[in-house]
Amino acid sequence: MKILVQKFGGTSVADAVKMRRACQRAIDAKEKGFGVVIVASARGKQTDVLVADAYELNPNPPKREMDQLLSTGEIQSVSLLAMALESMGHKAISFTGSQIRMVTDSVHTKARIKSIDAERIHKKLNEGNIVVIAGFQGIDEHENITTLGRGGSDTTAVAIAAALGAKECEIYTDVDGVYTTDPRIFKKAAKLDLISYDEMLEMASLGAGVMHSRAVEFGKKYDVTIHVRSSSEQTNGTLITHEVPQMEDVVVSGATIQKDMAKIGLLGVANKPGNAARIFTHLAQHKVVVNDIIQTEISPDVANISFMINLSDLNSAKEAIEEIKKEISVKDAFIREDIAEVSVVGVGMRTHYGVAEKMFGALAEAKVNIDTITTSEIRISCSVSKDQAEKALEAVCMAFELDRPAKQRTKSS
Amino acid sequence: MKILVQKFGGTSVADAVKMRRACQRAIDAKEKGFGVVIVASARGKQTDVLVADAYELNPNPPKREMDQLLSTGEIQSVSLLAMALESMGHKAISFTGSQIRMVTDSVHTKARIKSIDAERIHKKLNEGNIVVIAGFQGIDEHENITTLGRGGSDTTAVAIAAALGAKECEIYTDVDGVYTTDPRIFKKAAKLDLISYDEMLEMASLGAGVMHSRAVEFGKKYDVTIHVRSSSEQTNGTLITHEVPQMEDVVVSGATIQKDMAKIGLLGVANKPGNAARIFTHLAQHKVVVNDIIQTEISPDVANISFMINLSDLNSAKEAIEEIKKEISVKDAFIREDIAEVSVVGVGMRTHYGVAEKMFGALAEAKVNIDTITTSEIRISCSVSKDQAEKALEAVCMAFELDRPAKQRTKSS
Repeated sequence: MKILVQKFGGTSVADAVKMRRACQRAIDAKEKGFGVVIVASARGKQTDVLVADAYELNPNPPKREMDQLLSTGEIQSVSLLAMALESMGHKAISFTGSQIRMVTDSVHTKARIKSIDAERIHKKLNEGNIVVIAGFQGIDEHENITTLGRGGSDTTAVAIAAALGAKECEIYTDVDGVYTTDPRIFKKAAKLDLISYDEMLEMASLGAGVMHSRAVEFGKKYDVTIHVRSSSEQTNGTLITHEVPQMEDVVVSGATIQKDMAKIGLLGVANKPGNAARIFTHLAQHKVVVNDIIQTEISPDVANISFMINLSDLNSAKEAIEEIKKEISVKDAFIREDIAEVSVVGVGMRTHYGVAEKMFGALAEAKVNIDTITTSEIRISCSVSKDQAEKALEAVCMAFELDRPAKQRTKSS
Repeated sequence: MKILVQKFGGTSVADAVKMRRACQRAIDAKEKGFGVVIVASARGKQTDVLVADAYELNPNPPKREMDQLLSTGEIQSVSLLAMALESMGHKAISFTGSQIRMVTDSVHTKARIKSIDAERIHKKLNEGNIVVIAGFQGIDEHENITTLGRGGSDTTAVAIAAALGAKECEIYTDVDGVYTTDPRIFKKAAKLDLISYDEMLEMASLGAGVMHSRAVEFGKKYDVTIHVRSSSEQTNGTLITHEVPQMEDVVVSGATIQKDMAKIGLLGVANKPGNAARIFTHLAQHKVVVNDIIQTEISPDVANISFMINLSDLNSAKEAIEEIKKEISVKDAFIREDIAEVSVVGVGMRTHYGVAEKMFGALAEAKVNIDTITTSEIRISCSVSKDQAEKALEAVCMAFELDRPAKQRTKSS
């Protein structure tokens, strides 16, 4: 039996009408011959309500108890979905994370999946059930309930697809797919038919919020195609998949913008062995996530080091810098908070030349000044002034024709 | 360590204020040196809300899924209580039925407890935690979630007390104890300080709603004293306990009234071996609960048989009677729906004479006609006309001085 996993987010199961619509998706797939597994999130705002209840009782609620509490939202969704499926004439059974032995580590509120009891799911599918599984939750080795953190239900769905040997996992959501860039900023953004796991991971790490990185990592590791699609419309969405030859023809799949950034520069750092390690150890101790490190040599003994951080980490970063200054000779330090980063992502970059040139040209033509440039194998990022960021994104999108589907672009883009 | 189990019903944990009050009870007991276990029900109307959600999706929801759904209400209560306890400065941990291996049979919506993993609870108590356990729920051998039915959290609490070797289980509720009779009908009803398990079981089966029979049965079987008391006041409530000598001095502990009864009479039944069995087999097949069976011989070959049923079973009983008539020679059948039953209960009856006489005398004086009389070792029941039922209860209560505590009654009562 071919197996299909369908994941429905909170907005897709928010009320009885939406639940029945989700059930109909599952029934349609079952009638096409699939063994169908539904993974569901908590209904609508249920999780927010529970979080508020918790904070009313304890401003700093213990994480284990928070996980125990929040896990109930998904259990309610799946038992109700199973009831709805039964009333629509189809056998169904719901499972909690505990019941399918979704074993995780013990890091409450952001646990990682270690194993899943696929046998119990297979057995119930073989008996003709649609199996409905609570997303977001697992248990650790001591039966404590854990949750997987932000985007956790996506991760549950792809992990279950992997454990069952399913080739595809459908993610139903309130957008109809993954776009070339954020349509709220670049209104002409085009929906992608296809994007590779690596591109999606780069875009997710650059702030594109559609899919959480860990779900995409699972898909990549176990070769599960992820189909991001609309829960209200019947159109196809975007397939996140391994690289196929046609992707190489597309130089740039998407562009991203990150506005909540700050740039920190340490100038005149004594360039001794171990100094860079010391600097980033202090930052790590303050839990500051660091990106785009650039070190430039000024003289054989002195270097400038700059890096980007999220604005939310700024206070922690400042504390770290004070510690660094006490330990290492640093001539000066600066912080720029008026900075943003525009990036283009595409596996085609590996085989095409001229991508950087085209990006810098587009920015120059739009009179956007580039502050720093960083690249990976499939990404080019430019930091720019925050007040020029949207203009920069638009210029880049137009240069790479991200306002139209890949097939309709001119060959050189 | 002496262990105390405290059970809080839905009204006692309905909001943050009441939850903190419940937590304070537990903290008080802990500070007196007890190892404290809390058992909690779902908050306020949470269960009703979930039931309504279920029926919106399926007018006949599968029982397994209903149990899965309803179990979340208690899990929310216990995780929130654990958070509240932490914020009040005390270590706490919450457990679901699954986490303490509260194993039951697989009869969904009215499962029976088979075993409990006391070790895990002991371990957490020994580590200094207040342990907070979800009432009402268990798991069967296949990890399906089960619920224990009406009054289930009381049963959970007493069963856990038994499993932990606790001597006492406190049941916090919105009344301050068990009364001699229903105070809504007999306003002068007195609170009992003490009642035996057997008396409480008789009273529960006669419709006194304070404690569910199964919780009392557990208490009796494992010698756990059950203390029914108010969640809002600091007064002592009623102890349900094994028989102690002083109970024998109290002839009648309580009186009950059941109004939702019907009496069925089968007249002129051929009195052959096996006929009675056939009659009650038919009734059982229609799931009619039968009480107070009276068979009287009219001639060596012919008998009259009457019995009481709940009004809610009346239609099923009528169907059963039609079947019975086809199989057995029955001259006539009658149904009385205008019937009620008044009973007195007391272990003192075993050693005192004149109880029946006093009861019948009180009813005669109040000009109440007695229809049938049935007795057990510690109970006398009289069926009377429904319109005379409240007058009958009052007459009986006054005769046995049930308007005052046992200690204040005259010796002969």
